[in-house]
Order: sequence, then C-alpha cells, then structure tokens
Amino acid sequence: MSAHSRLSLNQGTIKHASLAEALHVSVRQGLQSIGLWREPIAEVGLERAAQLLRDSGLRFSSNCRAGFLTSPDNRQAALDSNRVAIEETRVLAEAGAPGSSATLVMVAGGVPEGGTIEDARARFEEGIAELAPEAEAAGVTLALEPLHPMYASDRAVLSTLGQSLDIADRVGSSAVGVVVDAFHVWWDPDVEAQIARAGRDGRIASYQVCDWQTPLPADVLLARHLPGDGVIDFARLTALVNAAGYAGDVEVEVFNADLWAKSYDDAVAEMVQKFDAAVGEHLTEFALA
Amino acid sequence: MSAHSRLSLNQGTIKHASLAEALHVSVRQGLQSIGLWREPIAEVGLERAAQLLRDSGLRFSSNCRAGFLTSPDNRQAALDSNRVAIEETRVLAEAGAPGSSATLVMVAGGVPEGGTIEDARARFEEGIAELAPEAEAAGVTLALEPLHPMYASDRAVLSTLGQSLDIADRVGSSAVGVVVDAFHVWWDPDVEAQIARAGRDGRIASYQVCDWQTPLPADVLLARHLPGDGVIDFARLTALVNAAGYAGDVEVEVFNADLWAKSYDDAVAEMVQKFDAAVGEHLTEFALA
Repeated sequence: MSAHSRLSLNQGTIKHASLAEALHVSVRQGLQSIGLWREPIAEVGLERAAQLLRDSGLRFSSNCRAGFLTSPDNRQAALDSNRVAIEETRVLAEAGAPGSSATLVMVAGGVPEGGTIEDARARFEEGIAELAPEAEAAGVTLALEPLHPMYASDRAVLSTLGQSLDIADRVGSSAVGVVVDAFHVWWDPDVEAQIARAGRDGRIASYQVCDWQTPLPADVLLARHLPGDGVIDFARLTALVNAAGYAGDVEVEVFNADLWAKSYDDAVAEMVQKFDAAVGEHLTEFALA
Repeated sequence: MSAHSRLSLNQGTIKHASLAEALHVSVRQGLQSIGLWREPIAEVGLERAAQLLRDSGLRFSSNCRAGFLTSPDNRQAALDSNRVAIEETRVLAEAGAPGSSATLVMVAGGVPEGGTIEDARARFEEGIAELAPEAEAAGVTLALEPLHPMYASDRAVLSTLGQSLDIADRVGSSAVGVVVDAFHVWWDPDVEAQIARAGRDGRIASYQVCDWQTPLPADVLLARHLPGDGVIDFARLTALVNAAGYAGDVEVEVFNADLWAKSYDDAVAEMVQKFDAAVGEHLTEFALA
C-alpha cells in the first residue's frame, strides 16, 4: 500500500483507536504522517507517546486540540491546560520524522451560559495574546481553527478565517496561525480572499479536508464525510491553498459514526482512496521545508 | 390584549393556520402587522387574500417567499414563479393598512446536484439582475435573505449580509434589499459593519427575530426558538438595526414543532410576551414612513 505523500490521518477519523493502534494502521496503510489527539496521548503519557511516534517513522502534523478559552470561570486552569498542550506539541514535533509540524489546533470554545458571543470572542483573543509569547518561545504554532457557524454557540465562537486572521494581526505574534478546514470554510463567500491573505501572512498552519452532506445527522458533530462524498469543491479549495503557498501535510479529519464502526484498516484504506480521488490529484508533492 | 406596535407575526410561526385563521388570531392578540406565506395565499387566491387582509386592518410586512434561482434546470419556470410573487407582493402591500411594506423575501436556493456553490451563487445573482427592473417597476423590494451557513448546501447559497449587499451593489437597483434575520446572522463576526452598511445604502427591508439554541433538533429547519429562549444578544442586534435607521415592522418567524403543536392563540400570545421582553424594549415605536 502507498498513500499520497502529503496525506495525514487525523486520529479523530479512527476515534476509538489507541495511539499505538493509530500509528500502526497508518504505517500499514502506507501513510507518512499523522495528526494526534490529546486524549490518546494522555493515556500513555507524553514520553511514551513520543517514543511510539519516533518508532513509527511518521511525521507529526498536528496536536488536536487546545483552546476553549471563552469562559470567565476557571480561567487559570484553562490557560494552564493550553500550556501543557504547547509543551506536548513541541515534544511530539521533535519526535516525528523530518517535516513534522509543531502545530497546536486551537478551538475557541462556545458562548458561556448567560454570556454574549461578543464577550466570549474577546476572552478568547485575550487568551491567545497571553499564550502566544510562550508558544513562540517553544517554537509552536497556535493554529486558530474557525469552526462552521453552526457550532458558534456551543463549541467555537471563532467562525471565519477572516476573523481568525484579524485576531492574529492584533495579537501580532508569528506563533499565531490558522487552520483551513474545508468542512468549516467551504460555504464562506470570502474564502478565496482570506486563504490568499493567510498565505501572504504566512499563517496557514494546516489544511484539513472532509466533506459536507445533507441532511445533517441528529448529532451535527458527526456530520463529516470523507472527501468526495459531499458537495465541497475540493479542486477549487485545494487550488486556493496551493496558490497561497501551503506545501505541508493535509489531514483528513472525519467524525462519522459509520466510519468509526469499520475496522481501522478498512476506514484508513477508504480514506486513502477517497483522498486521492478528491484531493490528492490537486496537490503538489510533499516538499521538506 | 395589545402587542408591541412594530411586532409582526410571520405566518410561519403558526404554520398550520389558514390565511383567515392567521389574520383573525393576529387581530385577537392585538397585533398590527402580519407577514404572509405564499402557500396559504394560493389556497384562497390572490384577490380573496387581499380582501381578507384589507378586512383585517393589519399592515402587511412581507411575502414569504420566492427566489430558488440556483438550478440550471427549469430556469424560465423559476423566474416566472418569482414574477407571480412580485405581483402578489404589490397587491398585498396595497391591501394592507398604511405602513405596509412591499417586501418579497428571497431565499437563494441550494447547490444543485453535481454543481458547485460558486456556480450556484452566480446563477442566483443573474436571476436577481433579471428580476430587479420588474420589481422596481412594481414598487416591490426583492429582500435577499442570507441564511445560516448550515443551510448553504440544500437551501440557500446566500450566507452573509456582506455577500447579499455585494450582490445588491453589483445589480445596482434600488429594488434590491436585504433581510436581517437574527437567527441567520447572529454568529457573523462582520454583522455590525454589514448592518451599518445596509442602513447607509437604504437596503434593510426587514428585521426578523428568532433565537438560537443547542443542541440542534434532528431536523435543523426546526431549530428556531422564540426570542429570549436562546443565546442571541437581541439588545445588541436591535441597537445595530436601530442605529442603521430601520424603523419598520419586526417579524417573529419561528419554525418549531412544539410551538406549532399549540393553539394559534396560545402560540401568538407567547410570542407577544417573549418579543416584548427580549426585543420590544430595545425598539423605538413604529413610525409611519
């Protein structure tokens, strides 16, 4: 088996796998890169996780995820959890194969009970401003991920690339980047201009792909599909990301109950095939930075 | 009973009512204005609908809805259906009490099977450009309604106020306006600037209010709630709409299975009360143009 050289499995796609299982199936299916989630890392501890990653020979494309900085309660604990995640990201990027990326995906958090979206957004930005110097010192990128507006109330008050780049500008740190996730941005009338802007500013930390299909499932968190199974125009989005100069790993991050019910090998093999058909042909080959 | 002088019942809030029932319950509950849907109008015919409206003494705040101009198939039929809706709107605005508004709500339509969102958006804009001179001649405003991006694939490729105002600028007709619907725009990081822009350009044709709450129901079309029952900051949005100079009717348009299960009187009485508490206090009194 081989897979596209820039394809990375985001572990969320095989959510029930342990870290070791996710690494093994990735190698077996010919992948060169993986994006990890914090919970499976925590299960074995950071040192062991780094060893397993090193042994796999895979690149590390991102650490999912930190952030959740919109609540006025337990502020210090939220910031400290992000500090732990920054350190994890530094260690794992060093343990991964050459071309690994010290990218920490940041999900904003929702509107707190009784609060307003304006206040929540301001609080998130304050948190990023506080963490950015520490991320910079660690060589880690805080990759702000705008989520689809249907998650704005309960998960992420960060809703567009433009908003994320505005925050990056105001914070003014080179450690602040953005995630371009097709599922979250495909509908945005401003997506072309904002991907170009993100490229000009050197802020594209990750390109993630999964597809949008309706009707939405009862749990909209599980609304994602493998590339090619929905309505997103990956040829266009990928061309925009290419033109913006992004040449790193491309993660497939699909939360889907049917996919999770398959064997890890079957799920990853299907991902490899559908990625090639829908996205891979539009990408340039992976080039070491 | 009396209700806020600017409150208008959008008939979708009591979906199962006939036109006559909707008019009667509105009068009974002390409302001064109503927004109608095309299907109940069609049930009795336009002439009879106009007579019933005239007899009610209510203002007419909008005709819901036309548009659906994104498919390359049956193009002429889609345009002709919009022409019928323009004429309906003209007639009903004349039949309504002084202060009625000849506003036709335009929902874009989704991404056609096998098509792209870019093409669908271009096709919608072409349709608006074709219809605008006819609307202008009839004294009717084509009120472009951006819908929440979770409907972008299957219902409306028009997703933001900014995008709608860009179309209005390019079409260049005074007959093109926009709907500011709280449910659809509350998450938009650019909402403040775009409401102000819409006001400056004289394009706010309608302000609609309903609330956002999670978790979303299995059918996301029924995700709407009465104002105050969710997370939307109506004080802020209403202040923005006031500041933009909008002084017309404010429609409550809620699609909600629980509300539809109530008696029309109970549903409208609850709407009147919740509107007052969440929105009414932030509005100025209705002033005839």
